[in-house]
Amino acid sequence: MNEIKKGIKVPEPTLRRLPWYLAFLKMAASKAETRISSTQISRAINVSAPQIAKDLSYLEISGKTRIGYDVHLLISVLEQYLGFTKVHKAFLFGVGNLGAALLHDKGLSQFGLEILAGFDVNPWVVGTAIQGIPVYHIRDYPEIQLSTKASIGILTVPVQKAQEVAEEIVQGGIRAIWNFTPFRIHIPEDIVIQNTSIYAHLAVMFNRMENKL
Amino acid sequence: MNEIKKGIKVPEPTLRRLPWYLAFLKMAASKAETRISSTQISRAINVSAPQIAKDLSYLEISGKTRIGYDVHLLISVLEQYLGFTKVHKAFLFGVGNLGAALLHDKGLSQFGLEILAGFDVNPWVVGTAIQGIPVYHIRDYPEIQLSTKASIGILTVPVQKAQEVAEEIVQGGIRAIWNFTPFRIHIPEDIVIQNTSIYAHLAVMFNRMENKL
Repeated sequence: MNEIKKGIKVPEPTLRRLPWYLAFLKMAASKAETRISSTQISRAINVSAPQIAKDLSYLEISGKTRIGYDVHLLISVLEQYLGFTKVHKAFLFGVGNLGAALLHDKGLSQFGLEILAGFDVNPWVVGTAIQGIPVYHIRDYPEIQLSTKASIGILTVPVQKAQEVAEEIVQGGIRAIWNFTPFRIHIPEDIVIQNTSIYAHLAVMFNRMENKL
Repeated sequence: MNEIKKGIKVPEPTLRRLPWYLAFLKMAASKAETRISSTQISRAINVSAPQIAKDLSYLEISGKTRIGYDVHLLISVLEQYLGFTKVHKAFLFGVGNLGAALLHDKGLSQFGLEILAGFDVNPWVVGTAIQGIPVYHIRDYPEIQLSTKASIGILTVPVQKAQEVAEEIVQGGIRAIWNFTPFRIHIPEDIVIQNTSIYAHLAVMFNRMENKL
C-alpha cells in the first residue's frame, strides 16, 4: 500500500469531500464491486471526475487507466487517512437535548470518536448514564481528565456557557473542541476548533424553502 | 417594526452567520442588556463590524449611531427571519443511531422543527415511540403523509438507501430534505436539499489535530 503523505495540508473542501467518496465506495463494496473509476464516482455523487482524481491524489493513490481504483484498497486508505480507524477519546460537556442526543448516537464510535463520559451541572443527569456513558459533575472534570486524557471535548452547553466551559476544558488538557453551540469561541491558536451548528443549517434550509414557495 | 425584505436572496454565508448573532444577542439579553453595537457583537464573535452591519441590513434593520441595535427587537426580527418562530412539520426517515439521537433532541422544536413521526423497516423500532414520537413502517409513509402533510424529510437512513428513500419521500410530497447521510442525493431542482454530514466534520477535525501534533 502506498504511504500516506504526512504533514501536507489538504484543503478543507477536499477533506469534506473525502467522506462522500468513502460513503459511495462502501456502497459499491456492498454490491460486490471491486474496481471503480473516478467517472463512476463522479456520476453518482455530482463531483467532476478530475476533481475526484485530484482529491484522491492527496492520498497518493491513483487509479489505473481503464481499470480504475481498487475499491477495498481505497476504502481502507480513506478510512485510515480520515482518522476513522483510530480511537479518539472524547468527553461531552452539556448533557442537555443535543448533548444527550449525541450520547445516543452509537454511529460516532464507528468513525473513531469514543465518548467516554459526559459532564453537566444538572442534578437530574449527574450520576446517571446514557447508553452506558456515565455523566459526571463538571467540577470532577479536571481529576477525571488527569487519568483519562481525552483529546476531544464536545461542546453542547447552553450558548451563554460556551466560552467559559471551553476555557475550562482547554485548561484541563483537551486539544480539540467540537463546538455544537452557535457561539464563536475564542481559544488559543494551538487548539483545534470544529464548529458544527446544526441549527444554522436549519435556518439555511428554511430560508431556501421560503424562496421556493 | 420594519418589514422584512421578501424574495431577496440572502447569500448563504450571511444566512449561516445570522444564527451566531442571534445566539450572542440572546446571551446579551439574558444579562439584561437592551442596546448593542455591531462593534460589541464583533468583539464577541470574531466577525468584522462592517460585515455584521451588512449582514443585518438584509433584515432592513439598522443600528443607530452611538446607540446601536435594540437587543429585543433584533432578536425577534432574527428569529422570525430565520424561520425559528414558525412550525415546520417534519418526518424522520431511518431510526438508527443518528436518527434516534435526533428524535431525542428536543432542542430542534425550539428552532421551529417539529418531528411528527419516524419511519423505519426494522421490526425492533417500528411500533415504538421515542420521546413520544411514534415510529412507523416506511410502507405506511404515503398514507400518513396524505393526512399530515409534513414539508421536511430528515434523512438518516444507511448510506446505501439514501437515494432510494429520498426519491420515495419526494414522491410523497416532501419539499425539503435534511440529508444527514454522506451521500450526495440527486433530486428534482424544486426540492431543497440541506446536507449536514457531521461525520465529515469529524474527519476535518481529526485531520487538523494530526497537523498540530
